[in-house]
Amino acid sequence: MNYPSRLIEEAVAEISRLPGIGKKTALRLALHLLKRDEEQTRSLSDALLNMRTKTTYCSRCHNIADDTLCNICSNNKRDQATICVVVDTRDVLAIESTNQYRGLYHVLGGIISPLEGIGPSDLEIDSLMSRIEKKEGDEAVREVILALSPTMEGDTTAFYLQKRLKALGVKISTIARGIPIGGDLEYADEITLGRSIVSRVAYD
Amino acid sequence: MNYPSRLIEEAVAEISRLPGIGKKTALRLALHLLKRDEEQTRSLSDALLNMRTKTTYCSRCHNIADDTLCNICSNNKRDQATICVVVDTRDVLAIESTNQYRGLYHVLGGIISPLEGIGPSDLEIDSLMSRIEKKEGDEAVREVILALSPTMEGDTTAFYLQKRLKALGVKISTIARGIPIGGDLEYADEITLGRSIVSRVAYD
Repeated sequence: MNYPSRLIEEAVAEISRLPGIGKKTALRLALHLLKRDEEQTRSLSDALLNMRTKTTYCSRCHNIADDTLCNICSNNKRDQATICVVVDTRDVLAIESTNQYRGLYHVLGGIISPLEGIGPSDLEIDSLMSRIEKKEGDEAVREVILALSPTMEGDTTAFYLQKRLKALGVKISTIARGIPIGGDLEYADEITLGRSIVSRVAYD
Repeated sequence: MNYPSRLIEEAVAEISRLPGIGKKTALRLALHLLKRDEEQTRSLSDALLNMRTKTTYCSRCHNIADDTLCNICSNNKRDQATICVVVDTRDVLAIESTNQYRGLYHVLGGIISPLEGIGPSDLEIDSLMSRIEKKEGDEAVREVILALSPTMEGDTTAFYLQKRLKALGVKISTIARGIPIGGDLEYADEITLGRSIVSRVAYD
């Protein structure tokens, strides 16, 4: 394609390197920015660069952070006795958006996958163990919640973690599996429906 | 939502100001950039800012340009006697991507729309007339192709332009309307199909 401007061509090329964004969408976004105030592009450009160059990883939970400790670990109001184990920052954000959890997190940075050559030593598992053993801060960790996807890899990782956590004498739990709220029984897959019957919950 | 990092929160907020990009997609893009080399974010950030701050409008065709003249107007190999009138840069790029047109363009910057209060004086129509009257360069303009969308506004604008261009004694044409290539007759709307019969083309 003959772009009327080399600068647009370069911007479109850069935007379309992002996942799920093709040339047409990239062009639409570029033309949108051209129509708006220069200030919008400037703040977008600055925000991206600041995010990439100034963020680091939390030394405790390995989540993305602005400082040595992330906003969650450094928040004293959070329940320091509960740790929720997740795969990545996206999972932390998904759980945070529910407003149902007030404990801390531990970000593994991946999932055990023999097919992709990812073993326990490639993940932040040893640091999780030492967090619990060390009993950092005043409170000891009482419960570890495994919030891993119910896939082959997730189950493998959960099984491995359970085995190692049991030795530390900490309570271990996993997020509930079942029919999604608002989901229709008719359209639920057999495995989920079957498990939801087996793990039925008694009315109080 | 409780973001673990203020910098990510700001980046997500800025990305989600783009059209068609919600918070979830913005977060996915931000996390993608965090996983990649710093260099990728840096070039994206620079490309956006350069595009926004360094591009200008072509003084002849009003397309986006890096310099006084856009790449198309300053290309001597293009047919200087034909001008294709379009609404915006997107249309220029759409036509350029066909590789079927070797003439110049004229970007109106909008379309006549009484409902939105856009009249002929808000568009680059006078500059189109003077481009043809002045016979810029060595060659005079012989043909003006109207490439406007077949909507109410597009037809109004085309009708207005035809009236004014006729006075200049230049050949006026419009892009062909009909059944799209690969389109199924069965699914064509009646107006398009009707027009495609009326404007049928004889085999040579």
